Amino acid sequence: MIKVGIIGGAGYTGGELVRLLLNHPSVEIIFVQSRSQAGEKLHTVHPDLLGEIELTFSADLNFQIDVLFLCMGHGASSEFISQHSIPAHVKVIDLSQDFRLDNDKVYGLPELNKESIQSANYVANPGCFATAIQLALLPLAHNGALKEVHISGITGSTGAGFQPSQTTHFSWRDSNVSTYKAFNHQHMAEVTKSLMQYQPWFDQPLNFIPYRGNFTRGILVTAYQYCEWPLAEAIRVYKEYYQDHPFVSVSERPLDVKQVVNTNKCFVNLTMHNGYLMIQSVIDNLLKGASGQAVQNMNLMFGLEETTGLKLKGGAF
Amino acid sequence: MIKVGIIGGAGYTGGELVRLLLNHPSVEIIFVQSRSQAGEKLHTVHPDLLGEIELTFSADLNFQIDVLFLCMGHGASSEFISQHSIPAHVKVIDLSQDFRLDNDKVYGLPELNKESIQSANYVANPGCFATAIQLALLPLAHNGALKEVHISGITGSTGAGFQPSQTTHFSWRDSNVSTYKAFNHQHMAEVTKSLMQYQPWFDQPLNFIPYRGNFTRGILVTAYQYCEWPLAEAIRVYKEYYQDHPFVSVSERPLDVKQVVNTNKCFVNLTMHNGYLMIQSVIDNLLKGASGQAVQNMNLMFGLEETTGLKLKGGAF
Amino acid sequence: MIKVGIIGGAGYTGGELVRLLLNHPSVEIIFVQSRSQAGEKLHTVHPDLLGEIELTFSADLNFQIDVLFLCMGHGASSEFISQHSIPAHVKVIDLSQDFRLDNDKVYGLPELNKESIQSANYVANPGCFATAIQLALLPLAHNGALKEVHISGITGSTGAGFQPSQTTHFSWRDSNVSTYKAFNHQHMAEVTKSLMQYQPWFDQPLNFIPYRGNFTRGILVTAYQYCEWPLAEAIRVYKEYYQDHPFVSVSERPLDVKQVVNTNKCFVNLTMHNGYLMIQSVIDNLLKGASGQAVQNMNLMFGLEETTGLKLKGGAF
Amino acid sequence: MIKVGIIGGAGYTGGELVRLLLNHPSVEIIFVQSRSQAGEKLHTVHPDLLGEIELTFSADLNFQIDVLFLCMGHGASSEFISQHSIPAHVKVIDLSQDFRLDNDKVYGLPELNKESIQSANYVANPGCFATAIQLALLPLAHNGALKEVHISGITGSTGAGFQPSQTTHFSWRDSNVSTYKAFNHQHMAEVTKSLMQYQPWFDQPLNFIPYRGNFTRGILVTAYQYCEWPLAEAIRVYKEYYQDHPFVSVSERPLDVKQVVNTNKCFVNLTMHNGYLMIQSVIDNLLKGASGQAVQNMNLMFGLEETTGLKLKGGAF
Repeated sequence: MIKVGIIGGAGYTGGELVRLLLNHPSVEIIFVQSRSQAGEKLHTVHPDLLGEIELTFSADLNFQIDVLFLCMGHGASSEFISQHSIPAHVKVIDLSQDFRLDNDKVYGLPELNKESIQSANYVANPGCFATAIQLALLPLAHNGALKEVHISGITGSTGAGFQPSQTTHFSWRDSNVSTYKAFNHQHMAEVTKSLMQYQPWFDQPLNFIPYRGNFTRGILVTAYQYCEWPLAEAIRVYKEYYQDHPFVSVSERPLDVKQVVNTNKCFVNLTMHNGYLMIQSVIDNLLKGASGQAVQNMNLMFGLEETTGLKLKGGAF
Repeated sequence: MIKVGIIGGAGYTGGELVRLLLNHPSVEIIFVQSRSQAGEKLHTVHPDLLGEIELTFSADLNFQIDVLFLCMGHGASSEFISQHSIPAHVKVIDLSQDFRLDNDKVYGLPELNKESIQSANYVANPGCFATAIQLALLPLAHNGALKEVHISGITGSTGAGFQPSQTTHFSWRDSNVSTYKAFNHQHMAEVTKSLMQYQPWFDQPLNFIPYRGNFTRGILVTAYQYCEWPLAEAIRVYKEYYQDHPFVSVSERPLDVKQVVNTNKCFVNLTMHNGYLMIQSVIDNLLKGASGQAVQNMNLMFGLEETTGLKLKGGAF
Repeated sequence: MIKVGIIGGAGYTGGELVRLLLNHPSVEIIFVQSRSQAGEKLHTVHPDLLGEIELTFSADLNFQIDVLFLCMGHGASSEFISQHSIPAHVKVIDLSQDFRLDNDKVYGLPELNKESIQSANYVANPGCFATAIQLALLPLAHNGALKEVHISGITGSTGAGFQPSQTTHFSWRDSNVSTYKAFNHQHMAEVTKSLMQYQPWFDQPLNFIPYRGNFTRGILVTAYQYCEWPLAEAIRVYKEYYQDHPFVSVSERPLDVKQVVNTNKCFVNLTMHNGYLMIQSVIDNLLKGASGQAVQNMNLMFGLEETTGLKLKGGAF
Repeated sequence: MIKVGIIGGAGYTGGELVRLLLNHPSVEIIFVQSRSQAGEKLHTVHPDLLGEIELTFSADLNFQIDVLFLCMGHGASSEFISQHSIPAHVKVIDLSQDFRLDNDKVYGLPELNKESIQSANYVANPGCFATAIQLALLPLAHNGALKEVHISGITGSTGAGFQPSQTTHFSWRDSNVSTYKAFNHQHMAEVTKSLMQYQPWFDQPLNFIPYRGNFTRGILVTAYQYCEWPLAEAIRVYKEYYQDHPFVSVSERPLDVKQVVNTNKCFVNLTMHNGYLMIQSVIDNLLKGASGQAVQNMNLMFGLEETTGLKLKGGAF
C-alpha cells in the first residue's frame, strides 16, 4: 500500500483527492492536513464523505509516508517547500502552479512526460485550462505543425476555488457568462513551455479567451489554426499520438462538457473549416484538470497501472 | 414629481428600487446614499444601469424630499431612525423587518391594509416569503376559515442579499437544493400578525418549510389546510377578495415561478385534495416581495394609481 | 462472472446501469437491447462511454445470461413479461413500476426486504421518490410510530426521462420551479404498502407535494409528523434501524442534494420542532433511486457484498 | 394609436412582442394569429400574461391595421408573403431570416440603417447573433479598418425556439456547454453584407465559433482583430459612432450577459492585447436580438421616439 499524506485537504482539490484515494485499491491515507479545519472530521467539511471515512484533519504532517500531495493555493507550495525538509523517500505531487515552469521538477502531464514522471520525485501537476489546451495542441507540436492558434475556452466555477468572490456569488453567476484574463491567462506559460518541448522554434501567439461558465465542473476548449493536412491526416496523427494514453479519446462526435464530467477522461474532436483545423477538447477541471491527474501521476510514479482507481462512473447528466 | 431619497442603495433591493423609479413617470430621484460606495457612480455598482443614470452614490442624505426609502439590512433601520430626526413632511418606506410588528407603523401589504397605507407616514414593507404566504392565506383568514396550515416554499438566492456566504457560493448552490430555518422562519411573526388581524382567535400552527432554490429570483409557496368549502366556493372567495387588487390574479393553471419573475404580480392557484384545500402563490421576491411592493406603497401614499411605474415586462424565460 | 442482459438500454436508467456495470468486478455485460438504437454503438447514444466499451445495441435478447435488467418505460415491462417465457435460471430485476405492488414479486428495497431479495427470482426495483420517502419513514413504521405525515420533496429532471416534454424544455425549466401530482403521486401506493408491511394498522394520509427542481440529479425529501419521542430517541431508533445498511447514514448536519449526487448513498437527518419530528432524506434519483439500487439488488441476489461496484466517487459540486 | 397585427404569436418572439406592445403607449393590438393555438387565450399559452390581456389567438388575420409583425419560423415568412397580398397601407416587420439579404427590403438594424428604416414599408429584422456581432464590428467597418476577425459567442437557449430538441432538453443542457455550426453560422451572411455596406472591399474571413450556453436569455460576443489604432482612439471611434443611438453604450467595465438581460440595450467594451483590438458586446437575444429591435424599428417607421415602450427594467440577476 502506498502511504499518502495530503497538505491542504479542506479545499476543492484536496477534497476531490480524498474522494479518489478512498476508492483507490493501493492507497492508505495516513493524514490529511488543514490549517483552518484541524480537529474537524473530514466529513464535516466535505459532507458527502459521511459514511466513508472517520478521519480527522490534522494540524501537522509527518513523513512516515510514501507520497505527499500539496493541495494548497498558489504561492503556498513554494513557501511550504522552503520551510520543510522533505526526506528523500517521500515523493511530492504538487497541485499548485508554483513549480510548473521549474526545470528541476517534472511537469506532470502524462500524455507529454510519461517516462520522466515514472522516475520523478517531485511532480508539478498541470493547471486545468493548461491541460485541456495542451491535449488539444500537443499532437500538432509533436509534428512541428503548430502555428498561431486562436483559442476560446469555458470553465466551471470550481476552478475558482472555495473562497467566495464576486464572480462566484450565485446571484451573480447563475445564468450569466463573462470572460476574464483574455490574452493573459496565467496557464499560458506552462502551455507554451510544453509545446516548445516538441517544437522549439515555435514563436507564434497562442490567443486565448477564457470564459466563466455558469456550471461547476468541466472545461471545453476550442482551438483553431491554419493546417495543411487534410482532416483525415489530422485525425490519424491525433489517434496515433494518443494510442497509448488511456484517458484521451479522439471522438468523432460533437463534444459537450458533460461527456467527461466526474471522470479523468479527455475527449478530443477534430474538424476542418476553410483551411482552419479546429480542435476541441473537454475535461473535468477537478479531475483530469487537477486531482485525477495527480492520482494518474501517482500511479505512474509507483509503477501501478495508470488507470488504477480512476475508472470513474461519469456524471453524464 | 415625488422627490425620492434612498438609503442603502448599493444592495439588491436598493438597486432594484432604482431600476423601478428610473422608469416611474412621477418620481425624481434626489439622492441615493451608500456608505460603502459613496462617490461611485450608480452604474459602477449596478452595471446594468449604464446609459440610464449618471448619478453618484452620496455619503449623506438630505430631507428636501417627499419620501425616503430605507433599503438597509435588518437592524440598520431602527438604528437609523434612532439617530435621525425625520421631518414630518417626509414619508418613510422601510424595507427592513425592524418595524413590521410595530403597531405605530403601517404594515405595507396593500392587499391587507390599502386604506391605512394611503394615509401612512411610515410604512414597514413586508418580507418576501411573508408576502407570498399572506397572499395565499389572507382570504381564508378574512372568512374566519383558517386552520392549521402546512406550508412549503422555495426562494431564489437574491433573498439572501449580496454578502457572500457558504450557501450563496455558486459552486455550492448550483444544481443544489436544501432547507433552512424549518418551522422557525423569521417572517412567520408578521404573517401570523396579519392573519390574526382578520381572524383574531387563530391559535393554530403555521408549519413552514423554506427551501433554498438554485435560481436567483422568485418564490413559490404551497400551503394546505382542511377546508369545508367545495373548491368552487374557495375560488369564488379568493376572486372576490382580490377583485380590487390589480397585482393579484387567481390562476386556473398550474403555477411556476417564471410566470411572475421580473413583475410585481402575484398569481394564486387553488385545488382540492382529500379534504385539503391547497393554495399556491408565486411572486418575484425582489419586486412584489420587496422593492416593487415598496413602489406600490409609495403610489398609494401619494394618491397615484396603484400600478404606476409597475407595469413591467416579465422575464418569462 | 455474472452474465447480464439489459432490455431498454438507450434510456437514462439503462445508460446509468451500463456505467455502473462496466466497473463492476463480477459482471460481464452480454447484451444491451434497444429497439430504437439497435445496431448503434452504445457510445453513440451515451457519448460519455467512448473509450470504455465498443458494444453495439442489439435488437434481440438471448437467455444465455444470469440476470436480466428491464429498463423500459412503465407498462412495457408487463408487456415484455407477457410476451416472453423467461427461463428459470434467469433472474429479473425490473426497474419499472409495473410489478411493485405485485405480491408474487419481491419489492427491491434492501433496507426493507434484504432477506427476501437474496432469494428472489424477480425483483421489482422501487421508484425514486418512493425510495427517498421510505428511507425517511421506515424506522417510524418499524416501531409502530407512524402517524399522518406531511411530505414535500424536490426531484431532478432526469426522473422525467429522455423523452422531451414541456416541463423538461430547458427554456422553461431553467431557473424555474413548480409542483406536479400534489397529493396524487404514483409512488405513494408502493410507499404505503411498504410502511404497512411494518405497521399494518396504518390508515392515515401521507400528504405529498412533489416539486420539479431545476437540476438534473437528486431528490430531497422533507417529512414531518407528530412524535412523542424526544429527538435523541428518534436518532437512536434510526441509527439502530440502519446499522446494517451500508448505504444509509444518519447525518447530524443539514442535508443538501449534492452530498449524495452520483453515489448510491442515502443520508437521513432528524430534527424536532414544536412536537413535530422532521425527517429529511437525500438520494441520487438515478442511483439509489433506480440503477444503483438495481445493482445493489443484484449483489444481494447473487451473494455478493452489497456494496460491490457501488463505491462511487460523489460529484460533490 | 398604431394598429398592430401579429402572425405567429404563440412562439417565443411572438410572446415577447406581445409583452412589449402591451406596455407601449402608442399601440393597439388588433389581433394575434396562431395556427396551432387559434381559439386559446393568449394567457393560456403565455401564462405570465394572465391579468394583462384577455385576447384570444385568432386563426385569421385582417388588414385593418397599420403594421404587421411576422413572428414565424424561417421559411414561413416568404411562404406567407407569396400567399397574401398585403395592402400598401400596411407596413411589415419580419422577424424571420427570409428577406434579410433581399435588397428590396430594408435590413432593420437601426444602428446601421436608421434613415432607410424610417421610410421603409418592409423591414427584415436582424438575427440575434447577427445583431451582437454587427454592433461589435460596425464602427471598424465604418472607418474601413475591418480585417480578419476571430469571434466567439455564447447564446441562451431561447434562441433555439420552443420546439423541443436534444440540445434544448433540460437534462442535457443544464450545466453543459457545447458549440454548433462553427465557421458556418447562418447569420454570417447578413453580418458580412452589413459590414460591406461600409467597407465594400472587405474580403477577409469572419471566423465565428458559436457556443450554446446553459442559460435562457442573452448573448455575449467576443471579437478581435489586428488594429493599428491605440485603444483610446478605438474607444473614441466607437463612442462617436454610437452617440446618437440610445440603446448602445460603450462600457468601460467588464461585460457580462446579465447586465442587459430583459432590456433592449447593447453594451460594448473595448480592450487591446498584443496588437489585437478585442471588442465584446452583450444583448438580450429576444429583445435587442429580436422582438425589442422589432419594436424599435416600428417606432422609427411611425415617427415615434426610438425608445418608446422600450425603457425596460432589466433583470439584473
